[in-house]
Amino acid sequence: MSEAEAGAGVFGASRPDEMTVQVLRDMANRLRIHSIRAASTSTSSLSTSSCSSAAEIMSVLFFYTMRYKQADPDNPDSDRFVLSKRLPYINVATGWPGQGLGAACGMAYTGKYFDKASYRVFCLLGEGESSGGSVWEALAFASYYNLDNLLVIFDVSRIGHCSSEHCIDVYQKRCEAFGWNTYVVDGRNVEILCQVFSQAAQVRGKPTAVVAKTFKGRGMPNVEDAENWYGRPMPKEKADAIIKLIESQIQTKRSLVPLPPIEDSPAVSIMDINRISPSVYEVGDMMSTRKACGLALAKLGHANDRIIVLHGDTKTSNFAEEFKKEHSERFIECFVAEQNMVSVALGCAARDRTIAFACTFAAFFTRTFDQIRMGASSQININLIGFHCGVSVGDDSSYHMALEDLAMFRAIPNCTIFYPSDAISTEHAVYLASDTKGMCFIRTSQAETSVIYARQETFQIGKAKVIRQSDNDKVTVIGAGVTLHEALVAADEIAKEDISIRVIDLFTIKPLDSTTIISNAKATGGRIITVEDHYPEGGIGEAVCAAVSMDPDIVVHQLAVMGVPRSERSSEALDVSGISARHIIVAVKCMLLN
Amino acid sequence: MSEAEAGAGVFGASRPDEMTVQVLRDMANRLRIHSIRAASTSTSSLSTSSCSSAAEIMSVLFFYTMRYKQADPDNPDSDRFVLSKRLPYINVATGWPGQGLGAACGMAYTGKYFDKASYRVFCLLGEGESSGGSVWEALAFASYYNLDNLLVIFDVSRIGHCSSEHCIDVYQKRCEAFGWNTYVVDGRNVEILCQVFSQAAQVRGKPTAVVAKTFKGRGMPNVEDAENWYGRPMPKEKADAIIKLIESQIQTKRSLVPLPPIEDSPAVSIMDINRISPSVYEVGDMMSTRKACGLALAKLGHANDRIIVLHGDTKTSNFAEEFKKEHSERFIECFVAEQNMVSVALGCAARDRTIAFACTFAAFFTRTFDQIRMGASSQININLIGFHCGVSVGDDSSYHMALEDLAMFRAIPNCTIFYPSDAISTEHAVYLASDTKGMCFIRTSQAETSVIYARQETFQIGKAKVIRQSDNDKVTVIGAGVTLHEALVAADEIAKEDISIRVIDLFTIKPLDSTTIISNAKATGGRIITVEDHYPEGGIGEAVCAAVSMDPDIVVHQLAVMGVPRSERSSEALDVSGISARHIIVAVKCMLLN
Repeated sequence: MSEAEAGAGVFGASRPDEMTVQVLRDMANRLRIHSIRAASTSTSSLSTSSCSSAAEIMSVLFFYTMRYKQADPDNPDSDRFVLSKRLPYINVATGWPGQGLGAACGMAYTGKYFDKASYRVFCLLGEGESSGGSVWEALAFASYYNLDNLLVIFDVSRIGHCSSEHCIDVYQKRCEAFGWNTYVVDGRNVEILCQVFSQAAQVRGKPTAVVAKTFKGRGMPNVEDAENWYGRPMPKEKADAIIKLIESQIQTKRSLVPLPPIEDSPAVSIMDINRISPSVYEVGDMMSTRKACGLALAKLGHANDRIIVLHGDTKTSNFAEEFKKEHSERFIECFVAEQNMVSVALGCAARDRTIAFACTFAAFFTRTFDQIRMGASSQININLIGFHCGVSVGDDSSYHMALEDLAMFRAIPNCTIFYPSDAISTEHAVYLASDTKGMCFIRTSQAETSVIYARQETFQIGKAKVIRQSDNDKVTVIGAGVTLHEALVAADEIAKEDISIRVIDLFTIKPLDSTTIISNAKATGGRIITVEDHYPEGGIGEAVCAAVSMDPDIVVHQLAVMGVPRSERSSEALDVSGISARHIIVAVKCMLLN
Repeated sequence: MSEAEAGAGVFGASRPDEMTVQVLRDMANRLRIHSIRAASTSTSSLSTSSCSSAAEIMSVLFFYTMRYKQADPDNPDSDRFVLSKRLPYINVATGWPGQGLGAACGMAYTGKYFDKASYRVFCLLGEGESSGGSVWEALAFASYYNLDNLLVIFDVSRIGHCSSEHCIDVYQKRCEAFGWNTYVVDGRNVEILCQVFSQAAQVRGKPTAVVAKTFKGRGMPNVEDAENWYGRPMPKEKADAIIKLIESQIQTKRSLVPLPPIEDSPAVSIMDINRISPSVYEVGDMMSTRKACGLALAKLGHANDRIIVLHGDTKTSNFAEEFKKEHSERFIECFVAEQNMVSVALGCAARDRTIAFACTFAAFFTRTFDQIRMGASSQININLIGFHCGVSVGDDSSYHMALEDLAMFRAIPNCTIFYPSDAISTEHAVYLASDTKGMCFIRTSQAETSVIYARQETFQIGKAKVIRQSDNDKVTVIGAGVTLHEALVAADEIAKEDISIRVIDLFTIKPLDSTTIISNAKATGGRIITVEDHYPEGGIGEAVCAAVSMDPDIVVHQLAVMGVPRSERSSEALDVSGISARHIIVAVKCMLLN
């Protein structure tokens, strides 16, 4: 629909009266003044001009279209607003360039399918960030799932790289090709904005995109639409003069009060997780932690009906099959679009509406590192599960092996990293993650390994387990996942030569149980060997080295995967990569020789 | 253009004769047999059926359309083929799911704008990976730069998530909306494939997309188009029976020889870098390493005309302004689409056609972690420059501060990481990177710091500099970038109290100069303090801890940024984050007390 058509088409919708229109204009100008003041007292890269363009859009959204309680920002019934581009007059720490739309999709999915409520979700996107692929992943997701409660506004100001008339056309065509109900409007016209936002609410089965033509620095003489103020703070005298001019255009002193929300969201509690049915595994049973994790999720789904699972292309894995079978209405297929999957998970978990688990090949979380670091700083409780970890995957290409995921997640402040080593501890990791604030990552392995813990074993975040010890231990070996089992084999083998070693299972890599590590190292002559199915950098070995670095009497020898591995049979992969029982035995003997 | 139209439209192009068509069909069936054999002897997740779908496409490309020298795979004049989806019968270690098209864009850009040569670039994409946003970044890039020497084939087999007739339509509309000349064809019809591939060569100013309807497991009774064989290996008896059947359809024994390439690529040498004009900086001059890096790039551009710079949205930064001014024809604006930027850089640098430097906010390289790990394993020489590092950026949002980039790049095998601390060492880092095989990352800072090295200083990869020392040093302080300057301030301050400390500049974080670190630590009572503008995990501190971990007489105290920082004035940011001179002094004193 062209701009003219939008104008004509939407005039059928209820028109705001003249006074309302003027008040909305005045409020836009007040926001504009506010943004000039905020930007001119700062030296940030955030510029005045790029904030002014969206003033009318914000005015209409916040004082005409959106239903919400101003005094209760977390109200579950209120419409949601996601600011993807950055604006200084909004009380949000920062925009999420390129990521806001994915989060908005998660909120809209939750509203439509989980809450089945009336609230709508609005998202404002800047032009620059629209080049990012994650935006197109989100656009595809929203139309695939018919998110008609979602409205996105593209703020296309003339100072983008593609903002001629031709370019407006490009946005329109692309949004339509991605299955969106699309309007092109003049972003300065509050009347039109009121009407398209209302009309969009009537459209069923499709999300709505509003391509708004705006002008950076709108309302500022010599700044509007001029390249030269972009990204630069404005001198105070100039700012004052412009503020005066804008003030002179304000005609009313009135304000508008937003409509209250429709109160039809169900009451939910994500804290209220029922008791899980007891574990069925016996010590010695063989099962991969990957499979145990999938089964634990399915079981957890019965404990709280707000547990949801997001998955990147189920075709490639049977990981989440059980959950999907038992709780299909709470399973979100996200296809091979991992960036969007993580953003959607954040959106679903926002305002504590769900407990989200997003799962894919651990290696593919590398694609979402930016989403992960933003997600962690948003303090939203989401859980990421990675499978296909390390060389133990065996004969698949190295591309699918995660060997850098621990380095990535360890560098995220406050992220909890579980690396369970058997089916029992995997169940515990899943339950603990569901109950833990902030971001959790669970690293699972493909190889079948034996159950080593008894059913009644209890687990805590930040508490390691000493699983093999005697008074005469010479070295402490720290493993995790598949390498823990190698350490146990090594312990049995080397015991035949009358050398005994202590074996520690970290359970969580972050937080790391330094106390247990240091006390056991001291009890074994200050000798530690770490062995991990991961590159040496940023992994378990370095975490342990850092933990003991102030202790002069402890030495650490690291066994890890060196260099890009080739595909090997699973059974040989650990040995070829230098992290098998055989290598642990050699390392122990070397250490004892020195 | 609909399928019918494609058929009608292209019949004007020179038609392959009947014999050629039959030979191409036979070769497709031979490829198919080859793929069944390869897949049935493997237990990889790579399935038989997903490889068979593209057999006709591959046959036509390799034996009819493409011009190349079979015996010389690196020939600069040959047409390029990028396999994005994975196929077992091609001699490439792996596909690059979601990344192949970006690399193909880089090759096509290089062919059109740098080589100005006749070679064409072909890229085969699978359906699953087309959900990935990086594919849409690449589609936007190719049409923006009118890459009419590029042809992409979407292998849309019926077992995707969206592969009804409706879905073919969706691909077509989206490709057209992204500005591509688009054909829809039956991917099993070799005659049509020959013709659209030829016709695309005549289209000027637009890249061509061929949406090929194919069927997974094509040619295999009970497998073709059936869900149940997807992702599963086939039993040998079944494979043998199918191979027999396919063999029976082969009618000729002939083969086809590809056309030779048109030899019009210029001879280039990326090894032949002329002498750089001498540095102009004096000790004590003030300049940020970010600015010095931009200037060094501009200078380097005069030393070899194959130096190119790619940049993610220049609007946000003046980093590459000088290079752009002096070498505009070798500057590629990539907008806010970092994943694609890195893939394009890899494509530009393939076959040693250019020396590529891709630059953006260091924090935004997190978006490209998957591209980085693939790029590093491809052994292609590319250089990444990150700016806006650490909290020293000051009053910008934490979103723009890179505090995890060292952890990320350190976990990449064979990646060289430069972290220069002044303008002189920055120049050297840029020159060394241009000359170094594989991937290099240069971390630069925003803060203005003084030049500390003389013009004649020489630098080597893996060699640290001891920049402050005396016989009586009590502690070795290791800094880098802004924190090195804090260490120097601390050294001056604490000297007033008659405590002398040694200061080391690592220059490269990877490889790390363990020898220099250990010998200096031993000379200073076994005491090391590391101080870095980065999170503690995976950074300089952990690298040093790991390097000295087998030495019982050395202790390391880490100073690093803890937790998500808030925006602060640049001058205060280091102090608030605990990595300023004041904190170094406290740490030294504490260490000496113990």
